[in-house]
Amino acid sequence: QGILERLDSGEIVIGDGGFVFALEKRGYVKAGPWTPEATVEHPEAVRQLHREFLRAGSNVLQTFTFYASEDKLENRGNYVAEKISCQKVNEAACDIAREVANEGDALVAGGVSQTPSYLSCKDKAEVKAVFRKQLDVFMKKNVDFLIAEYFEHVEEAVWAVEVLKESGKPVAATMCIGPEGDMHGVPPGQCAVQLVKAGASIVGVNCHFDPNTCLKTVKLMKEGLQAAKLKAHLMSQPLAFHTPDCGKQGFIDLPEFPFGLEPRIVTRWDIQKYAREAYDLGIRYIGGCCGFEPYHVRAIAEELAPERGFFPEASEKHGRWGESLSMHTKPWVRARARKEYWENLKPASGRPYCPSMSKPDGWGVTKGGKELMQQKEATSEQQLKELFQKKKF
Amino acid sequence: QGILERLDSGEIVIGDGGFVFALEKRGYVKAGPWTPEATVEHPEAVRQLHREFLRAGSNVLQTFTFYASEDKLENRGNYVAEKISCQKVNEAACDIAREVANEGDALVAGGVSQTPSYLSCKDKAEVKAVFRKQLDVFMKKNVDFLIAEYFEHVEEAVWAVEVLKESGKPVAATMCIGPEGDMHGVPPGQCAVQLVKAGASIVGVNCHFDPNTCLKTVKLMKEGLQAAKLKAHLMSQPLAFHTPDCGKQGFIDLPEFPFGLEPRIVTRWDIQKYAREAYDLGIRYIGGCCGFEPYHVRAIAEELAPERGFFPEASEKHGRWGESLSMHTKPWVRARARKEYWENLKPASGRPYCPSMSKPDGWGVTKGGKELMQQKEATSEQQLKELFQKKKF
Amino acid sequence: QGILERLDSGEIVIGDGGFVFALEKRGYVKAGPWTPEATVEHPEAVRQLHREFLRAGSNVLQTFTFYASEDKLENRGNYVAEKISCQKVNEAACDIAREVANEGDALVAGGVSQTPSYLSCKDKAEVKAVFRKQLDVFMKKNVDFLIAEYFEHVEEAVWAVEVLKESGKPVAATMCIGPEGDMHGVPPGQCAVQLVKAGASIVGVNCHFDPNTCLKTVKLMKEGLQAAKLKAHLMSQPLAFHTPDCGKQGFIDLPEFPFGLEPRIVTRWDIQKYAREAYDLGIRYIGGCCGFEPYHVRAIAEELAPERGFFPEASEKHGRWGESLSMHTKPWVRARARKEYWENLKPASGRPYCPSMSKPDGWGVTKGGKELMQQKEATSEQQLKELFQKKKF
Amino acid sequence: QGILERLDSGEIVIGDGGFVFALEKRGYVKAGPWTPEATVEHPEAVRQLHREFLRAGSNVLQTFTFYASEDKLENRGNYVAEKISCQKVNEAACDIAREVANEGDALVAGGVSQTPSYLSCKDKAEVKAVFRKQLDVFMKKNVDFLIAEYFEHVEEAVWAVEVLKESGKPVAATMCIGPEGDMHGVPPGQCAVQLVKAGASIVGVNCHFDPNTCLKTVKLMKEGLQAAKLKAHLMSQPLAFHTPDCGKQGFIDLPEFPFGLEPRIVTRWDIQKYAREAYDLGIRYIGGCCGFEPYHVRAIAEELAPERGFFPEASEKHGRWGESLSMHTKPWVRARARKEYWENLKPASGRPYCPSMSKPDGWGVTKGGKELMQQKEATSEQQLKELFQKKKF
Repeated sequence: QGILERLDSGEIVIGDGGFVFALEKRGYVKAGPWTPEATVEHPEAVRQLHREFLRAGSNVLQTFTFYASEDKLENRGNYVAEKISCQKVNEAACDIAREVANEGDALVAGGVSQTPSYLSCKDKAEVKAVFRKQLDVFMKKNVDFLIAEYFEHVEEAVWAVEVLKESGKPVAATMCIGPEGDMHGVPPGQCAVQLVKAGASIVGVNCHFDPNTCLKTVKLMKEGLQAAKLKAHLMSQPLAFHTPDCGKQGFIDLPEFPFGLEPRIVTRWDIQKYAREAYDLGIRYIGGCCGFEPYHVRAIAEELAPERGFFPEASEKHGRWGESLSMHTKPWVRARARKEYWENLKPASGRPYCPSMSKPDGWGVTKGGKELMQQKEATSEQQLKELFQKKKF
Repeated sequence: QGILERLDSGEIVIGDGGFVFALEKRGYVKAGPWTPEATVEHPEAVRQLHREFLRAGSNVLQTFTFYASEDKLENRGNYVAEKISCQKVNEAACDIAREVANEGDALVAGGVSQTPSYLSCKDKAEVKAVFRKQLDVFMKKNVDFLIAEYFEHVEEAVWAVEVLKESGKPVAATMCIGPEGDMHGVPPGQCAVQLVKAGASIVGVNCHFDPNTCLKTVKLMKEGLQAAKLKAHLMSQPLAFHTPDCGKQGFIDLPEFPFGLEPRIVTRWDIQKYAREAYDLGIRYIGGCCGFEPYHVRAIAEELAPERGFFPEASEKHGRWGESLSMHTKPWVRARARKEYWENLKPASGRPYCPSMSKPDGWGVTKGGKELMQQKEATSEQQLKELFQKKKF
Repeated sequence: QGILERLDSGEIVIGDGGFVFALEKRGYVKAGPWTPEATVEHPEAVRQLHREFLRAGSNVLQTFTFYASEDKLENRGNYVAEKISCQKVNEAACDIAREVANEGDALVAGGVSQTPSYLSCKDKAEVKAVFRKQLDVFMKKNVDFLIAEYFEHVEEAVWAVEVLKESGKPVAATMCIGPEGDMHGVPPGQCAVQLVKAGASIVGVNCHFDPNTCLKTVKLMKEGLQAAKLKAHLMSQPLAFHTPDCGKQGFIDLPEFPFGLEPRIVTRWDIQKYAREAYDLGIRYIGGCCGFEPYHVRAIAEELAPERGFFPEASEKHGRWGESLSMHTKPWVRARARKEYWENLKPASGRPYCPSMSKPDGWGVTKGGKELMQQKEATSEQQLKELFQKKKF
Repeated sequence: QGILERLDSGEIVIGDGGFVFALEKRGYVKAGPWTPEATVEHPEAVRQLHREFLRAGSNVLQTFTFYASEDKLENRGNYVAEKISCQKVNEAACDIAREVANEGDALVAGGVSQTPSYLSCKDKAEVKAVFRKQLDVFMKKNVDFLIAEYFEHVEEAVWAVEVLKESGKPVAATMCIGPEGDMHGVPPGQCAVQLVKAGASIVGVNCHFDPNTCLKTVKLMKEGLQAAKLKAHLMSQPLAFHTPDCGKQGFIDLPEFPFGLEPRIVTRWDIQKYAREAYDLGIRYIGGCCGFEPYHVRAIAEELAPERGFFPEASEKHGRWGESLSMHTKPWVRARARKEYWENLKPASGRPYCPSMSKPDGWGVTKGGKELMQQKEATSEQQLKELFQKKKF
């Protein structure tokens, strides 16, 4: 059954987790460029991660093609050996995803994301050509459906959806925006409307913000669609980091990004809460993005097991709500084998010299920061850097 | 070259990270029993984790035989299908470790850990028989050396070392104790002396405490050995969790154990600090335990690259001190591409409703708790549990 | 010179601090009722506090007549001996304020605040009669001007202003609301417009929120007045507690109110920042409310000393920005004698087991809470209390 | 009845709170010098504070003669007008204390504290002469007993006790030390023994550390006396600030001292816990030092009211355990009117950008810091300051 048949019939579809962060920790992706050449260099590592998500309950395996557009790979040419072409990276990604999908009941989704071409003001035709190049591979490899994800500008996302729709396959579209809307100020409700009008059957958000914030944004999208009398399935793939303190551009601007985010990692219990709230909001495609490890995906599947009627395979190695502690030798550890305990735990950081919140860098933070950024065009980057380094935080 | 040749020549030996925690998150180990039947059930997952540690710089691959003694596996029989015998789990563990070790320059170490037999007061002969059963497999599979690790009682650790020494192979021994010593009150210095006298060539600590605390304990061991005019190599494999607030029995008693420890996860920069301090203390076998992911091991290898003269393979996907951010489009993110930035960052938890420290459960915490535990023998466990549940924290 | 002459000429007028909180800590006011019978029972304590504020730089001494309306005092009859009449409390308050004001260059302001009569739905005539009773005393004692303060409903505040205007004296009006507006949902800008139309020459906010939040609210009032082309002086008298986490009704609903607010107390440096920001926003009547001690008022006067041209008397016992530490015997304490140090200090709480933020009780908090409060009319208070007590926080 | 009669009969004696901190906030004492010339300059302010402590339950009014030795006052000559002699300051202090003591049932204690003469290595005779000068005034004014308090070196404290004993009046002696002992490394138990041998009838600690730490120190003193088979009454007058993170020299070295300590202020409930624990430890002279406001002293008196059989006068304005909230209009505020609520509250700081712990400045902190301070003699102070300013915190 295809993605739309599943969603149309009311099924819950569980997405997968975040590849670039998980594989960075495993040693196969470089933070900064974040490109997916591992599909060619270390296919076994990519394959294993797909398997873990499948086992954890994912119904969709996204091809590991994040930032795999030709312009991005070239842009990061110093990191990727010349011999690994854009085509090869995308083809390998499709093959690995399909191989693992066949081990279970999962769909393969080919994905495109925002491009350097758009950011450097190339025109619509040029940007669309970039997407089309990836789409050609997805068609050749016959993925099950397509996702345009991680777009900060709805204009570019619309172009991506338009290209993907040429394929005739179902298209999902998610933006990495918060409740304040896209980088040009288009509010979430309006973004959703534009994406659906462009041809997306599923819309929502991914990355950049924590589950709480993402659900707020999807709620605004839902309201926008209702107001416009449009119908679409809703989708949510947030970070697995707590980010109550981030600004308009999300976790990129937090001082901890990307090498000091550990204290923000969400627990499996946070994810169960998220899955329930997403479901209650009417979202039926529920997954994750950066920071989501297999056990986070399993937590979605466990929370929604009553609705879905089954547990994922990986639950054979997981007691619901800590029940596997009920045989521990210490009575006070056994006493943790209950739902109320984990639901109400306020976990300590073990870091008494650290604050609980950060002030994001960049624009929108302080009056000084805002002014600084408004002069952006006029100021050389060296000056900006100097100013930045003088800033206290 | 064997482990002792390496250490005797002054080489730094990098250990691997924590299997049970990493594989629990990946869906292959059950928290609570923590047994390693995945070596038989999902060898590809175990193999992949070994590979990641090897790639991150580990010079030793420990067989995934934690809690793989026959009594423990039986004890946890409800979790492991009958058909998987103790022997099969241990043999598969050896085969997988050797297969991956052969892909690089790593040694294979067979490991034993504390047993239910000891805790249930079986006698010396019986406990030794349990260790011998695992040793038989290690000898058959010809591991390079042996590790007795995760012992809370030095008496049992000594028995384990005595058994392992029968093999003629080098033996390392680490206890999961803090500066207060073992569960019978034997101080770390004295533990070290007993272990060396029993035949261990390498002694130290693993698990239960954060890097800071572990280094304090190893320092006490070093001083004990010096006072006794004994010589041995030092070894340290701490948690990758901040635990300044834990009591004598370590992180088990923290209320977050084991499903809410996320905010305590250490960063790669914390690990670089740890590696440097371990080195300065004279420790030459430096690795990790629960919570250590491949990128944490890589951080040890990168910190000590000047001393060792080379970087691990996985450093091809890691800029030193964030240098891979130097091409980021945002100037304030580029400004993070420097050592001073990451060294001095005090990372926020994003959890303003959570404290920074916890009060450990169990004994040694509060006057009430202490008294409670002193009555342990007299009180039924049900009562203990009730008392526990009434406790506020 | 009267209050309006001062403000019209561009002078900065410094208000005083919070009497009920300061005198509660000194032992003369009971938290809960918060009534000012101390003017009769312990005039020396009230006099001394007035003196301290005067010495710290206050240009206005408010009569200690908070909650001194007849209905309130009766309502709290069990706390106040019958023999102390409303009239006596108010007269004594006027006498003490005038006596101290004459020791310096300060004005005396008679104050009224919200009444039980309004909350219990008495009609306009009845509520106005309550205010008029206090006004009679203020006229007899010839205070310099009048303040209607601490109103949660603009309707009642307007009635108060209308009564006070009958006197012919200048009237200031401040509401204890945040940016969300009054308890009936009237936004701050509209509140300001109504108050000015009713006759207030000075409008602003007092109490319930921290300096940051209060300034946001006054900004909205300013914008409302500008949009309506009305002119009035602006006034701000916030809490001296950090309350970033409070809801619509302010600090009352924080779980720490009123006996656990200590960790939230602002420093003198926080107040200097507040005074500067208030000034920059165009506010010229700058004071404080609950939590403001004399040294907080002095901090306003010191920050604005360049604009005003003089320091307050109490500055003879205060080095600017810690300069009095420059003779300390320890070099690291001497090193604190500079502005940059105190401006940038992030003070620790010494409370590692406490969070940094609270969840306010009552409405507007959680979905459950909100629903709970929407049923308020229908539910007996006993039920509410039970529900509250079951709540986890 | 004199102090010893009271203590000998088993009575609990409640001390007063901290004058220099309270009067600094009220505008009469300068932080840095901390000298008590206010007794002459503003007797009404000193008198009012005495009254508040008396009303709160203090059985002893200490003359406000902290740092009122002649060498200290001269040392700080730039702050105190020449015409105010040491004698005048001390005489006024005695007169004010006696005047207020006569309003109730309180004793007057004359106090001396550590001297610049000792710190600048003057000999025993010279230091004793300084104490004798203050003692002359105390004798002339006929105080009820004498206190030698705030000594960092037991040697100087012993000299002070020897001088005070010449008077024939009872002598109490408290040191501002923690469990690590005095600045020359004399442990608390030995300090207590020396003080009792020198003639002190009451020994204990004051200032520098929080209640928790002070009780630990007094416990060590008690054990020292028991081991030496000496008898004395125990006394404790801690800070009203949480200082779990301070080093050997106490709160002076915390980065927040003295102008950013607000978030550390203890609640009345913390004090009730302290009073109970002090009582349980056998301490019968229980008071406070810096940070203790009248309501903190009242909390001691209320906690021990069952033992003493009466409440202090100021309790007429204080409901036990929040009971005065039981008439509040909001049900969730009424629900705070109970002991369990306040006992278990973990108060938030409202400061999500601040840590919970600080690293103290100065020696004993970091390896670098320690080395730095060991070179103290050799290094010029300018260098120290520069080094300090480079330090990150």
